[in-house]
Amino acid sequence: MATVWTDSIRDDIPRIEEFILETIHSENSELDEMCRYVVESGGKRVRPIVCLLSHLALGGQDRERAIHIGSAFEIVHSATLIHDDINDGGELRRGRRTLHREYTLTKAIVAGDFMLTRGYKALGNLPEEAMQVIANAASAMSEGEFTQQDFERVATVTEADYFKIINGKTAVLINAAAMAGAFLVTKDHDKLSVIDQYSSKIGLAFQIIDDMLDITGSKKTGKRVGIDMTEGKPTLPVIYAMQDPKHGDEIRSLFTDRDITPEEVERSLELIKETDALARCQRKAEELADEAVSIIRALPESPYRESLEGLALYIVRRDM
Amino acid sequence: MATVWTDSIRDDIPRIEEFILETIHSENSELDEMCRYVVESGGKRVRPIVCLLSHLALGGQDRERAIHIGSAFEIVHSATLIHDDINDGGELRRGRRTLHREYTLTKAIVAGDFMLTRGYKALGNLPEEAMQVIANAASAMSEGEFTQQDFERVATVTEADYFKIINGKTAVLINAAAMAGAFLVTKDHDKLSVIDQYSSKIGLAFQIIDDMLDITGSKKTGKRVGIDMTEGKPTLPVIYAMQDPKHGDEIRSLFTDRDITPEEVERSLELIKETDALARCQRKAEELADEAVSIIRALPESPYRESLEGLALYIVRRDM
Repeated sequence: MATVWTDSIRDDIPRIEEFILETIHSENSELDEMCRYVVESGGKRVRPIVCLLSHLALGGQDRERAIHIGSAFEIVHSATLIHDDINDGGELRRGRRTLHREYTLTKAIVAGDFMLTRGYKALGNLPEEAMQVIANAASAMSEGEFTQQDFERVATVTEADYFKIINGKTAVLINAAAMAGAFLVTKDHDKLSVIDQYSSKIGLAFQIIDDMLDITGSKKTGKRVGIDMTEGKPTLPVIYAMQDPKHGDEIRSLFTDRDITPEEVERSLELIKETDALARCQRKAEELADEAVSIIRALPESPYRESLEGLALYIVRRDM
Repeated sequence: MATVWTDSIRDDIPRIEEFILETIHSENSELDEMCRYVVESGGKRVRPIVCLLSHLALGGQDRERAIHIGSAFEIVHSATLIHDDINDGGELRRGRRTLHREYTLTKAIVAGDFMLTRGYKALGNLPEEAMQVIANAASAMSEGEFTQQDFERVATVTEADYFKIINGKTAVLINAAAMAGAFLVTKDHDKLSVIDQYSSKIGLAFQIIDDMLDITGSKKTGKRVGIDMTEGKPTLPVIYAMQDPKHGDEIRSLFTDRDITPEEVERSLELIKETDALARCQRKAEELADEAVSIIRALPESPYRESLEGLALYIVRRDM
């Protein structure tokens, strides 16, 4: 195993950053500045990385094209974050003011559309099958967002509802990025299926950890905790905590409260931490990562396959 | 000349509607309903029509593909209208409540993204040159929107600023639709240039008439008048009216007033109507349409070329 899981693509990672900046460049200096503001805020570049590694692990040779396509997914993802932050009334993202707070709401909507468009264009002419995966992903993203909104502050939300939401919110785009990288190499159903299953599982694990970080906080990102609770977002820690015999009733009542105060949010986080919800979430995420690792081992051994294994483990151990 | 300018594509028009509905279909019934609400609100389908007619007038045979591509542009256009209405705080569009008023702002943002994505996907794999035109159009759209926002309530806005704004706001997408239809047929520079110039000119004329309708009103659309004035949008009638020796000063002062009242909006419309602004706008739009007609006559005679001539004239004579 490589000492650092990104070793096999060390020289490619700067190209991802370069290509993202090239792709979002606008002649309008303010629009350009806004887009840079968003993409330079330190994302983990999971989508380009998984696209590139999937491509290489299947024996693909076209690093440049895989970088371009993976980066295009990252731009699409960043665009959706702009609109999500508007929808959530979010003030901070990764320790900095959200775009619509730093600039204006109206310009942020336009900038989001601009990045969405540039991202889709940068995907270029992909194989028909890849286009289908992307079209399905786009539908699942919007539909997942609708489901999430429908379950805001609804105490009857189930684990199954949650997985439907995070599938659309996170997993499908990570999956589509991986599959796009794979379709450049092969049409073999078995190989594609390995990438398909692997990437879906790490996508789900990724979002579970993200939702845990909203409770436990992260030293690195500066993201405030309790945002999901403030907004009544149904997350797995909350769903599990509402099942707790001791604190479940109180957490349910806080979760469904439209007028929850900052003190009550704080209280709810304390209560959640006293239940086994976070431990159950961590276990769930690790199970998914372990499954992803054992699935990806069906591919021939290579530094890229090792990196994909490392990526799955990194995702569930990260603290940002 | 055909008795009705749409005669040459009479059987194709229902296919445009069908394809639009197929393309925006979602499994999520509310999302599907929202998208239908937007596209069924009675647009004039200028983008699919100009795409199809440009294709056919150049001798193209692939009606179905031109319909698909043109419809995709219409979907992209509809998506931008959803976000524009949010940005403008618009209450009504074509006589019906805007999407974010009929549903919620948060779901409307998502529905706009969904339609934008479905629209771009439906463009499919276009020739490289067409992709470039579309990428440029997307940039110009966002940049035009920024320029428009920068000139809100700014009395020094010029005719040149206005043309930059409406180029991005309207003309580039109509142009891109026409060029996409054309690129399916030919790479001949002269032929492409005819379609390029023709479509840009009708796009500009289209928006000038639209901006006039915000002053004069339309019996058919039910759109309220004075919305642009209420929002301080720089339109050509206002720019011309601010140059009027008699009423210019008062119109300037109303246009720059952040707290303009409905009565003052009404007053400003009356003042604008007393100037020669609307007559100058109509002349400008007709000049553009006439130029478009004489440009398109460089193509060989055909029912499709006649329809393109008719389209240019329809655009500047319409009252909706």
